[in-house]
Amino acid sequence: MTAAPPSSRSRVKRLPERAAYDRATVDAILDEGFLCHVAFATDGQPFVIPTVYGRLGDSLYLHGSSASRMLRTLAGGVEASVCVTHVDGLVLARSAFHHSVNFRSVVLFGTATEVIDPSEKQRALQAIVEHIVPQRWQDVRGPSAQELRRTCVLQLALDEASAKLRSGPPLDDEEDYGLGCWAGVIPMRIEYADPVDDPRLASGVECPDYVTGYRRPGSSHS
Amino acid sequence: MTAAPPSSRSRVKRLPERAAYDRATVDAILDEGFLCHVAFATDGQPFVIPTVYGRLGDSLYLHGSSASRMLRTLAGGVEASVCVTHVDGLVLARSAFHHSVNFRSVVLFGTATEVIDPSEKQRALQAIVEHIVPQRWQDVRGPSAQELRRTCVLQLALDEASAKLRSGPPLDDEEDYGLGCWAGVIPMRIEYADPVDDPRLASGVECPDYVTGYRRPGSSHS
Repeated sequence: MTAAPPSSRSRVKRLPERAAYDRATVDAILDEGFLCHVAFATDGQPFVIPTVYGRLGDSLYLHGSSASRMLRTLAGGVEASVCVTHVDGLVLARSAFHHSVNFRSVVLFGTATEVIDPSEKQRALQAIVEHIVPQRWQDVRGPSAQELRRTCVLQLALDEASAKLRSGPPLDDEEDYGLGCWAGVIPMRIEYADPVDDPRLASGVECPDYVTGYRRPGSSHS
Repeated sequence: MTAAPPSSRSRVKRLPERAAYDRATVDAILDEGFLCHVAFATDGQPFVIPTVYGRLGDSLYLHGSSASRMLRTLAGGVEASVCVTHVDGLVLARSAFHHSVNFRSVVLFGTATEVIDPSEKQRALQAIVEHIVPQRWQDVRGPSAQELRRTCVLQLALDEASAKLRSGPPLDDEEDYGLGCWAGVIPMRIEYADPVDDPRLASGVECPDYVTGYRRPGSSHS
């Protein structure tokens, strides 16, 4: 947590002791997740939309329909803010005031660049699929020229990313530690259940190991 | 999914067949979660910040430090957009193009009202705590007058909420169903692990049933 904030708007204002700006911390949070919330504004009206992403090197890739209002707006150079959050536990303190949540989040600022070149676009789509389900790309039918045209891909640089983290037990006021109230943490993590075959799965098709053993990189913290 | 969108900005533009506007659907999604992403903009610069919430009747309550930039900005009447998302599964299709995610999300628009009256503020804080951990409020030390002053509470009406949902198996192009590629869903849900006692827990304090048996209302869909 020694790195400096990359920009004024990326500096964590509240509880700066929970901030981190080093890329290793940022990348670990981004790589464990695959869902982000993207915010943008038009004429002062903010929008926040959930979408999947993939990270490849210094870039975050978003994609969706070429008809998507969000993607068209962002491709036009409107400022974006992207957030990825993992909730690791509920923190139950002895006072209402000190209740908290253990979490790890990344907030990213920047403007997106549309990926136009078809082969670059294909690589970006592969990066998104492989970010979410490693080893998947080789097994599926790749995008046709028409599907590529119907898909908009955006790239966001990771230049202005900040992380914020809380972990560990509740921090109560000293005089409250003697109260007879239970305090501690309820850890949370995402569980991936047994895969469910498509009802129209062709007979004899086996479920691959990367599906049956699916898990995200990293592990839950609390 | 018969109700009409409450406003133009709340109308789901992409894949409107996945939209829902009825309060029962919206409330069920809000009540299953407790983390939202709040977006707002100042001078065209969007911000998106994760925070907890509580729902009580027709209101969503947010809270935090009175020094929070986000809360001060929103209390000033700036437009807000709030999103709550549950990811229920990864949808693996036979084509890269038709990969998807099963999810349920709510997006809310509006301007926040600061809750000023101390007893109303206390009720709102209780609503947030009880939304996240039902039965907790009765066990904890309630907020002091100073803690109340240091806490900002905002209320957002649920007038302009929309939900968007996807569930079920992948939907592939008809000609791809014969491919020898596995397809189906990897279901996801949040798991709450055994509670971890605070290392400074007073001796003899038992963990209450609402903690050991913690679960959210609703259940995962995929």
